[in-house]
Amino acid sequence: MRFRYRCPLRWSDMDAFGHVNNAVYLRYLEEARIDFTSRLARQSAPSAFTGGSVVARHEIDYLRPLTHQHDPVTIEMWVTKLSAASITFAYEIKDAEAEAAGDGRAGAPYVRASTIVVPYDLEEERPRRLTAEEKSFLEGYIDDSHRG
Amino acid sequence: MRFRYRCPLRWSDMDAFGHVNNAVYLRYLEEARIDFTSRLARQSAPSAFTGGSVVARHEIDYLRPLTHQHDPVTIEMWVTKLSAASITFAYEIKDAEAEAAGDGRAGAPYVRASTIVVPYDLEEERPRRLTAEEKSFLEGYIDDSHRG
Amino acid sequence: MRFRYRCPLRWSDMDAFGHVNNAVYLRYLEEARIDFTSRLARQSAPSAFTGGSVVARHEIDYLRPLTHQHDPVTIEMWVTKLSAASITFAYEIKDAEAEAAGDGRAGAPYVRASTIVVPYDLEEERPRRLTAEEKSFLEGYIDDSHRG
Amino acid sequence: MRFRYRCPLRWSDMDAFGHVNNAVYLRYLEEARIDFTSRLARQSAPSAFTGGSVVARHEIDYLRPLTHQHDPVTIEMWVTKLSAASITFAYEIKDAEAEAAGDGRAGAPYVRASTIVVPYDLEEERPRRLTAEEKSFLEGYIDDSHRG
Repeated sequence: MRFRYRCPLRWSDMDAFGHVNNAVYLRYLEEARIDFTSRLARQSAPSAFTGGSVVARHEIDYLRPLTHQHDPVTIEMWVTKLSAASITFAYEIKDAEAEAAGDGRAGAPYVRASTIVVPYDLEEERPRRLTAEEKSFLEGYIDDSHRG
Repeated sequence: MRFRYRCPLRWSDMDAFGHVNNAVYLRYLEEARIDFTSRLARQSAPSAFTGGSVVARHEIDYLRPLTHQHDPVTIEMWVTKLSAASITFAYEIKDAEAEAAGDGRAGAPYVRASTIVVPYDLEEERPRRLTAEEKSFLEGYIDDSHRG
Repeated sequence: MRFRYRCPLRWSDMDAFGHVNNAVYLRYLEEARIDFTSRLARQSAPSAFTGGSVVARHEIDYLRPLTHQHDPVTIEMWVTKLSAASITFAYEIKDAEAEAAGDGRAGAPYVRASTIVVPYDLEEERPRRLTAEEKSFLEGYIDDSHRG
Repeated sequence: MRFRYRCPLRWSDMDAFGHVNNAVYLRYLEEARIDFTSRLARQSAPSAFTGGSVVARHEIDYLRPLTHQHDPVTIEMWVTKLSAASITFAYEIKDAEAEAAGDGRAGAPYVRASTIVVPYDLEEERPRRLTAEEKSFLEGYIDDSHRG
């Protein structure tokens, strides 16, 4: 199962070249992760990720440029690896409508990326292990057909 | 040879957790690359990178958190791979003074990263090959002791 | 008549104090203006504001703090003054739902602001006068009960 | 007496029109205020502004456009009004060198602005009055020749 997040753009996401700047995509991914861990996860695991989490690593490939548009882009997000104390997410950022319409090139992703996230214990001020509840929730989003 | 860029922080680089946000580091790397390609490179190759360049990929590891400080951080930047039509840069972001003082933990990098950059032809609106002049300039910054 | 723009927040709009930063509200106002001048205006005046426009002045009062929330805020926007070559907009940023529910304090604005905008002629690279078509469109949004 | 803050620009401060975006100037003013209240003020009044402060209002006039440049701009900042529980700052953002060289148009400000700031009591979570120490420090920066 993949999580789909509709991410609105802002005009100011573009830089002086008139394209969404490479750094801004990490903001988009952040919005998707926050919605996933602090809203969706808590519907099935109320205390999930309450101490926040920390980004340990990003990999991000820029496949084609994006200019400001009225419609949100869609971020597809899923889990590719689950360890005792870390989660690896993968993502694709694309136009939902173009994809749905089977519109070849237009449906191709703008960006493919992955992030290693480490859950955090705010009181102890250090990384912590995933809880059984969190693991169970995350397992529903494991997708081995990663980047396929 | 490594290029060293002193990068001033802004208070607003911090997010609600009180640390420099993971997306902001890509801004820091951008500042270093722009100074390298549009100021330094042109001292030895006046027409270098005049059509701009495009980021094709980032990898970035977050090693320890950074909070706002008055002193700039130092970005060390060098070339790890040079192809006909792309450059791979590596970087470390650290405190220059702590490092100079041989101050162990304090001298450790906040971030290690690499970026694949593709030079661009603005008139043709497409990627282009590196010129001989650009290659010659970039070769001076090849460092095989990458991340060592 | 007032224009109502639903403006999604981002988690990264908050600063280290955990509130939406004062500079970020100008981004919100920009989003509302761009939707107003480049989408809505063109429904009645197809060539309206095609050369863009320039901000000459902002006034902005911060009335109560805003923290990140899932629901968009509502920006109410209207025209308070129309000259030959400038428009003055006023705005209130508030929670639409709280207001609709007649929920006193909760319905109070976070921000009141105004902006003087100057239409621009891209080819001539200078400010220009409003067209008759633009004026006619803008007159529909004049509201004298400004900040009332 | 006026406080002078050298503010480095970032390439990403520019928007798709190729100029520093109007919202970004509030970041520049923030950097100047933070350096003024949390570094400079504490040299003469060690406990000044320890609970932070809140922006109540900005007025900002955009006088001419600014594009990215290697050299920092200079922010001149001074106090125009001092009340029991608020400070009004005024600012001009300009090129220091052009001004020093008596270079007419080049020395003209990019921006004139003013901000009402309210000191804050973090423990009580509410605005507070200025201390005698803070007032004494701030009085040294009162300049009646405001915007003259």
